[in-house]
Amino acid sequence: MPRVVDAGQRRAEVAEAVRRVIIRNGVTGTTLRDVAGEAGYSTGVLTHYFPDKAALLLFALQATTGRVAERIARIDPNKAGALGAVIEEVLPLDEQRTVNWLVWLAFWGEATGDQALAAEQRAHYRGFRGRCEEMIVAAQARREFSPELDAGDEADRVVALVDGIALQAVFDRERWPADRQRRFVASHLAELAG
Amino acid sequence: MPRVVDAGQRRAEVAEAVRRVIIRNGVTGTTLRDVAGEAGYSTGVLTHYFPDKAALLLFALQATTGRVAERIARIDPNKAGALGAVIEEVLPLDEQRTVNWLVWLAFWGEATGDQALAAEQRAHYRGFRGRCEEMIVAAQARREFSPELDAGDEADRVVALVDGIALQAVFDRERWPADRQRRFVASHLAELAG
Repeated sequence: MPRVVDAGQRRAEVAEAVRRVIIRNGVTGTTLRDVAGEAGYSTGVLTHYFPDKAALLLFALQATTGRVAERIARIDPNKAGALGAVIEEVLPLDEQRTVNWLVWLAFWGEATGDQALAAEQRAHYRGFRGRCEEMIVAAQARREFSPELDAGDEADRVVALVDGIALQAVFDRERWPADRQRRFVASHLAELAG
Repeated sequence: MPRVVDAGQRRAEVAEAVRRVIIRNGVTGTTLRDVAGEAGYSTGVLTHYFPDKAALLLFALQATTGRVAERIARIDPNKAGALGAVIEEVLPLDEQRTVNWLVWLAFWGEATGDQALAAEQRAHYRGFRGRCEEMIVAAQARREFSPELDAGDEADRVVALVDGIALQAVFDRERWPADRQRRFVASHLAELAG
């Protein structure tokens, strides 16, 4: 009896397969054929859903950023340590979150030459930055962070810090184990507390 | 009479042509044929020097990072404001420095799947970070920065800050004009002064 799967479930399985192949082969070394094999489909079935590698990577990216955004949306801004919890979701602290960055970085190389992807990139950052600002404003209201800070500027600094740590950590895990990433964030959050 | 050019000069001209084409078409939209046309060579002559686009991009990257590294090497660590001068060289404050980042970002996408490129990436960051640390130590010696700071950790924070600002600025110039980038750096350097 054939497996009964709907299109949405099949696409979610493919997104997971893409991520597993990226862990193994890197983004450049990932082919449609590898992903089809990993997902247990023929290349023909896969290309029915994704015509080329760019479409596959874009889907894996959207699946990745969508899932992270959902987890971040569930964090209550009014709870102590909310901003730290948001940062935990995005830093490359384990293999899953590192793969998020690998997919994200692959997309950056593409976005440099593509206005539509660059616009998506921009929208994603503005969204993440807005969420951080909201967390900072709420933390100022409960006096967790200094009320004198400009929440918008501080949100930009947090985004810059997260990107900056992540970019080094992805390529230089030896110098940036999870506890060192956390220590840097903790020291920055302590500054916001004043 | 044919132009007399040596191989080194020809390669330098090609690197400039690659950068001009990237400004116009983006990295993904850049082809060997475009670069040959821009440099005034046939595609055949170009492929004599660079067998494929990856080789061409790697060369453009090395030409770019080499030139930036040279300019940074000329900055005297013992002069006031040396760290700020280093940061000025790398931030995407104008079109030339923005193109440096576009080339660099394109390379990142590749480096996620290539151990050799990832190692080059790591070496480049360790070098830049080492230079920043040297500047911080010198600034501490002349009391420009607080002597209590851990120069190694502060160098990591500076590298993270520069990357973080640059990545947003490259894709969102509207929110990150040059004066805003400089203001963020100035505020960070003021913190180091204590």
